[in-house]
Amino acid sequence: MRAIPMRGCYFGGMTSRHQEPGDRLHGEEAIVALLAPLTEGVAGAFGLKDDCALLTPEPGTELVLKTDPIAEGVHFLPGEAPGDIAWKALAVNVSDLAAKGATPVGYLMALSFPEAPSRQWLSTFVAGLREAQTRFRCHLLGGDTDRRPGPLTVSITAIGAVPQGQMVRRGSAKPGDLLFVSGTIGDAALGLALLREPSRAAEWFLNDLQTVGPIRCYRRPEPRLALGPALRQYASAAMDVSDGLVKDLDRMLRASAVAGRLRAADVPRSVAGNKFVAAVPNHESGRRLAQLITAGDDYEVLAAVPARHAAGFRAAAAAAGVPVTEIGHLAAGTGLVVDGADGRPLPLDRTGWDHF
Amino acid sequence: MRAIPMRGCYFGGMTSRHQEPGDRLHGEEAIVALLAPLTEGVAGAFGLKDDCALLTPEPGTELVLKTDPIAEGVHFLPGEAPGDIAWKALAVNVSDLAAKGATPVGYLMALSFPEAPSRQWLSTFVAGLREAQTRFRCHLLGGDTDRRPGPLTVSITAIGAVPQGQMVRRGSAKPGDLLFVSGTIGDAALGLALLREPSRAAEWFLNDLQTVGPIRCYRRPEPRLALGPALRQYASAAMDVSDGLVKDLDRMLRASAVAGRLRAADVPRSVAGNKFVAAVPNHESGRRLAQLITAGDDYEVLAAVPARHAAGFRAAAAAAGVPVTEIGHLAAGTGLVVDGADGRPLPLDRTGWDHF
Repeated sequence: MRAIPMRGCYFGGMTSRHQEPGDRLHGEEAIVALLAPLTEGVAGAFGLKDDCALLTPEPGTELVLKTDPIAEGVHFLPGEAPGDIAWKALAVNVSDLAAKGATPVGYLMALSFPEAPSRQWLSTFVAGLREAQTRFRCHLLGGDTDRRPGPLTVSITAIGAVPQGQMVRRGSAKPGDLLFVSGTIGDAALGLALLREPSRAAEWFLNDLQTVGPIRCYRRPEPRLALGPALRQYASAAMDVSDGLVKDLDRMLRASAVAGRLRAADVPRSVAGNKFVAAVPNHESGRRLAQLITAGDDYEVLAAVPARHAAGFRAAAAAAGVPVTEIGHLAAGTGLVVDGADGRPLPLDRTGWDHF
Repeated sequence: MRAIPMRGCYFGGMTSRHQEPGDRLHGEEAIVALLAPLTEGVAGAFGLKDDCALLTPEPGTELVLKTDPIAEGVHFLPGEAPGDIAWKALAVNVSDLAAKGATPVGYLMALSFPEAPSRQWLSTFVAGLREAQTRFRCHLLGGDTDRRPGPLTVSITAIGAVPQGQMVRRGSAKPGDLLFVSGTIGDAALGLALLREPSRAAEWFLNDLQTVGPIRCYRRPEPRLALGPALRQYASAAMDVSDGLVKDLDRMLRASAVAGRLRAADVPRSVAGNKFVAAVPNHESGRRLAQLITAGDDYEVLAAVPARHAAGFRAAAAAAGVPVTEIGHLAAGTGLVVDGADGRPLPLDRTGWDHF
C-alpha cells in the first residue's frame, strides 16, 4: 500500500548495520525477488506476484492460525545475525502450532525495515528462514515489505492444519490431570543473560561449551512439532511456554477454570540450569528456581494429561524423541500453588513477562 | 512471547497522546479484554484465550490470505482518530480480498504500542474496528499485543474464502482484454494533501463540502466487496489499486506477460479530482492527471475483462451498485503506454509508491 512520504528525521541510526553504502536494495521488487524462492514454487503463493495467497485446505482438516511479530531490541538483541532473527521469527509462531497438535502448512510474512536492507543482509536472512522452514516443513505463502521508523520487525502469521476436531485447546484441562512439560525450562533466559553479560558464565561455573546450549535456545528455539500426535491423542489441554512457565500455566488454569499445583523442583533443568541454581548458597536457590520458571522464551509445550493417559503420553513422547517431565497436577477450584524444593510455597516476584 | 526488558530511552514522545496519566491500561489481559468482544463469540477465536485461532473452512472453498500492516506516520498521519486507524488497518487488507473475488471470513491482528494505550484510546479503536468488521462481514479471530519503540503499528492478516478454483488472479490477464477500474482514482491522495495542507482546498477551488469526500477516501477506504461476483464471473484478472494505478497496472502486465495501454483521460475522477485538474492552465493539466493516476491509496479494483464479457461485467457491476469505467486495453507484448488527453504519451515522473 501507499505510504506517506517520510521525513529523514524519522530514521534513526539504530539499524544502519543492515546496509553498507552502495549495497542497498533498491525497490520492493528487488526484495521480493530475494524472498520469492522461499515459496518453493507452491502454486498458491504465485511466486509472490499476486495480491493474496491462496490456500486449499486438505479435506477433513481445520486450520490453526497464529500471529506473533518480533522486533529488534524487544524480542531479539540488536545486531543479532539475520539468519537467527529469521529462524526465531518463524519458530515462535510454529511453536504455538506445535502446542496445538497442528502441522505447519505455510506462513505470511510482513517485513518492516527502518532503512533498505543490503543484499547481503537480506540473503542471510533468507538463508536462515530457509533452514527454519525446511526444519518445520512449511513455506512462505505471501507477505509485504515496507520501510518505517523504529526497529526492524518481522511479523509472521503461521498457518497449520489439524484433523477436524483435534486441535488441542488451552481451556480444556480437567481436575485430576497431570501436568507435563517438554524439554528443559529457563535456558533461553540464561542464554540471553549470557549474551548481554558474558561474565555470567564464570559466576555460574559454566565452561564455554556449557554456554552454547542456552544461547542456542535463545537464538534458535526448536518448536516441539514431533509431540503433535502424542498431544492430540492424550492431552486434554496444551499451550506453548513463551512468557514464563508460571504465567502460562496460570493462563491455562484460568482458561480451564481449574486449580493447579506446580512442583518447582521437578521442573526439568539443563546442565546450565542446574549450575545456575547450584551457584548460590542453598537458602538462595529457591529464588533462582523461581527465576527459571518465570523467565519465558522457552518455546516448550505445557500439557495437561488425564492420569489414566499418563503412561501412554510418556510412551508416545519417548517414541517421538521428545523428553517430557511431570511437574504437577490440577484440581477442582481456582488458583495456582507453586511448591519450592522444601515443599513450602515458593516466593515469586513475578509470574512471567508482560509487555504492559 | 517474552521480550527483552526495554530501556526507557527507546520510548519517544511521538504517541504520548495515546494515553493520559493515570489512565493507562495495565497488563496485556486488560487489552485483550477490550478486544475480545470483536470475536463476536465465534467458537474458533476462543475469546482470545487460546494460543491460536481455529478456522474450519467451508467445504468447496479455498482460502485467500493477505497481510499488510499499517504504521503511524507511514501509512496514516500521526494523531489520526483511533477509529479511523482501525478502519483503515482492516480495509486495506480486505480490499485485496475484494479484488480476488473473495468474501472476508476473519482476521488476525497484532498491535504494537510504543506505550500502553489508554482505555479511552483503545475503546475508540475497538469501536472503529467493529464498524469496519460489521461492514465487511468478518470478525477478529486472534492476535497479539506488544510494546515496542517506534510508531504505533496495526498488523492485520485477513482471511477470505472463494469457491474452489475461482480466485481472480493478477497474472492471468490476456491480450485483447479491456481494462476496467472501479470508483474514482486519486481521491485519497487529494484527501491526504488536504489534511496536511488545508490551504490546498482554496487552490483547487474546493468548498468545504467538496473536501469531505477525498478526506473520507483517505481515512475510511471502502473495499469493493460487492464487485466479487462480477469479478469471479467475468474478469480474467484483477488486483486492488493501492500503490498507484500506473504502478499496479504495470504489475498486472508483468505478472500476465502482456502489454497494456491506459487512457489517462478516461480514468474516472471525482468532482474534487476534476477541480484539481482544472485548477491549472491547460498545458499543465497533464501533469495533474499524472499525479492522480500514480498517487495510490485508492483501494479500488483494477480488472482485465475479455471484450466478449465487457457488457456482462458492466451489467453485473451496475447491479451490485459499483461504478466501473473502461480505461484501456491489453495487447500481446510487453510494456505499458499511458496516453494523455491529447492522445500522446503522458509524461510520468514516477509510476507509484515504493517504500525502497
